[in-house]
Amino acid sequence: MKDAKEQSSEIVVEDQKIIGNGSSIRETITDVRGFLAWGAYTGIKSKRRDLALIYSEVPASAAAVFTQNMVVAEPVKISRKHIKQGRAQLFVINAGNANACTGEQGRLGAQEMVDTAAKTFDLDPKHIIIASTGVIGRKFPTEKVVKGIIKNASKLTSDPIAGTLAANAILTTDTFAKESYSRAKIGKHEIRMAGIAKGSGMIHPNMATMLGFIVTDAAITPPLLDEALRECVNESFNMITVDGDTSTNDMVAVMANGQSGMPEIKTKGKAYKAFREELMEHCVVLASQIVSDGEGSTRLIQYDVEGAPNKVAARQIARTISDSNLVKTAFFGRDPNWGRIVAAAGRAGVSYNPDKTDLFISTEKRTVQLLENGQPVKWNARTLKSMMRAIHLFVRINLKSGKGRATAWGSDLSYEYVRINAEYTT
Amino acid sequence: MKDAKEQSSEIVVEDQKIIGNGSSIRETITDVRGFLAWGAYTGIKSKRRDLALIYSEVPASAAAVFTQNMVVAEPVKISRKHIKQGRAQLFVINAGNANACTGEQGRLGAQEMVDTAAKTFDLDPKHIIIASTGVIGRKFPTEKVVKGIIKNASKLTSDPIAGTLAANAILTTDTFAKESYSRAKIGKHEIRMAGIAKGSGMIHPNMATMLGFIVTDAAITPPLLDEALRECVNESFNMITVDGDTSTNDMVAVMANGQSGMPEIKTKGKAYKAFREELMEHCVVLASQIVSDGEGSTRLIQYDVEGAPNKVAARQIARTISDSNLVKTAFFGRDPNWGRIVAAAGRAGVSYNPDKTDLFISTEKRTVQLLENGQPVKWNARTLKSMMRAIHLFVRINLKSGKGRATAWGSDLSYEYVRINAEYTT
Repeated sequence: MKDAKEQSSEIVVEDQKIIGNGSSIRETITDVRGFLAWGAYTGIKSKRRDLALIYSEVPASAAAVFTQNMVVAEPVKISRKHIKQGRAQLFVINAGNANACTGEQGRLGAQEMVDTAAKTFDLDPKHIIIASTGVIGRKFPTEKVVKGIIKNASKLTSDPIAGTLAANAILTTDTFAKESYSRAKIGKHEIRMAGIAKGSGMIHPNMATMLGFIVTDAAITPPLLDEALRECVNESFNMITVDGDTSTNDMVAVMANGQSGMPEIKTKGKAYKAFREELMEHCVVLASQIVSDGEGSTRLIQYDVEGAPNKVAARQIARTISDSNLVKTAFFGRDPNWGRIVAAAGRAGVSYNPDKTDLFISTEKRTVQLLENGQPVKWNARTLKSMMRAIHLFVRINLKSGKGRATAWGSDLSYEYVRINAEYTT
Repeated sequence: MKDAKEQSSEIVVEDQKIIGNGSSIRETITDVRGFLAWGAYTGIKSKRRDLALIYSEVPASAAAVFTQNMVVAEPVKISRKHIKQGRAQLFVINAGNANACTGEQGRLGAQEMVDTAAKTFDLDPKHIIIASTGVIGRKFPTEKVVKGIIKNASKLTSDPIAGTLAANAILTTDTFAKESYSRAKIGKHEIRMAGIAKGSGMIHPNMATMLGFIVTDAAITPPLLDEALRECVNESFNMITVDGDTSTNDMVAVMANGQSGMPEIKTKGKAYKAFREELMEHCVVLASQIVSDGEGSTRLIQYDVEGAPNKVAARQIARTISDSNLVKTAFFGRDPNWGRIVAAAGRAGVSYNPDKTDLFISTEKRTVQLLENGQPVKWNARTLKSMMRAIHLFVRINLKSGKGRATAWGSDLSYEYVRINAEYTT
């Protein structure tokens, strides 16, 4: 072989059959231009992937919103600082250990997670956003995470399977991976957007961390991205309730790397609105998948509140209804108990005239009115009963007391939920 | 309320915001016309979904292929009989228990699974195909499965999330759900096809059951569907190797319910070919996802054998190379060791002249020739080394000894695989 002529034998192949890029594999975050990903085993979890890496080939505009819980995990403390630059290039997320209530050991571990990633990927540490999810108060497995970052950096790929692996690597007790993908037009440019998320699991309320990571090849300034994300999270992730608890680790983050070639969105014009709408769609889809995978949840119920005195009031009412255990158990029992819905609305701390209330229940196919001006409407019991079997239900309540509107999502409350939470021993 | 006028208050809603049917949620088996599904908890597995139901609203043409292992699970025995009718309407799959080596108790359990489903869904028992996956030789949890079928029958829905739940409910130690979806034209008609699969896990070779379920709204006669499925499985699921073992429970089944409205395919003409090609695409995509999730697998390698004396010889060579531990470890070590590939081909039991062998290694972007007429070609070592980082690699070997061609897929063999299988204690 040493005698062979030194030449590159590289040739172009025309008819290479490509696995996994056929029309029947579904797109993931790595189909968004300029993004690579991987989901790896580090051994924190004995049999499942537990480290996700999401990388932009160029520095991207970035924004994130974090938990409002007073107790905050170490990665949240760091990422909150980093995101202030408005730029990021890498998300590093581990599952299996939340790095919350871990003290100095955890603080150092989170810092080492950043420093290792910065060194491995040759990045400004401030361009790295880290997140953790899993058990709280247990020593952070720094060495496993650090080794995992180093070992798996070279595996980053745009292959669609990598997006799926990343989506699975951030799960804890979720029963399925949450993923979204879309293509949209902004002006003349096609942009792509995709997201992954994890939600509440089956074990303990304070492990029910909600994480969302969205990537897009749209171009937008960091302040506008931040504003859009806050608005979207406020009307999606913040409007879902599984058990009302907020975690120490909640985070939704987005990178927009501009690789679609579109001109950067710098003002709140038409392009901004189109972008915001697309981002909203992803936040709503990911959040609703989280509700669908709630502890023992069997139904996803959307609550639309209209005609509230103002938006804040509408949000308060929507959340109070969607959070009500009486409403939730009624839905589990397939009982369209309007009394419980109206009662929950009435105790939301908002002043309105209940005698004007209209109330509707819908499936995707049909709608039945239950109340008109606060008075029961006679409905077709058989229709209603069959409607209550749907796994997606829509409750619309119109207070006719103003222009405030809001939407919230909630699950029902099943025997399964009680069993899970009753049988779990710490 | 008793005084209220008896009338249906059903109204049509124009602007109902539909969750989960937005553009950013990805399609699943329930987006194929006339198919409903669900993935449920029955308690066989403590924290994960373990029962999948896939239902066609009308009786469908059906076909299935089964494991060739001499030891065969109870559901396989039953489904093998049922599929002979060529019609089916319901797939019922449980995870967590394989119902293999369970004796009379297991036989009765499988039969009760069928009888319960037949009664609950008001179906001819022969139109029900059942499958099980999980632990072998442990008492079949008949009561849990039966209760699960009864309890969850009403949850069947065409909501896309249900397809995802079903895809997750058939997993055992898989680290992600395998799903495929496509739309294609056959003549003037758009048909839809989608599949779910599970593959080998992380624990024990004899738990590495391979299951695949494909649904389509195309119309095709049962004998032609059977022929197409056999051909496709033969060139996909049967050409993947993770550890060479076959399970007691392997099964790939398909239902074609004709709800696309296309005329039924009754001859092996153009429409048949188009259908077969679409089915092949799904089989290949699902099978390659299984390889990608193999025990400790880090790479998916496609082996194309050309110029073998005949097709059978080509298949034999492709499988021998993809099965070789020496080849597999070379790929894990990022060593393009052509000697091991050629040696594996040489011991496949096929007679050919090795001095004519051409050998190529490719990624999705580039190809390097390693051998020409059995002689090493000098390649660019740097190019090759960087190519070996790809998670999808393609090996093409041309024996120039005939017209036989075949493709096989394999994983590499990692430390992780050894660790997993060494540390596992039964």
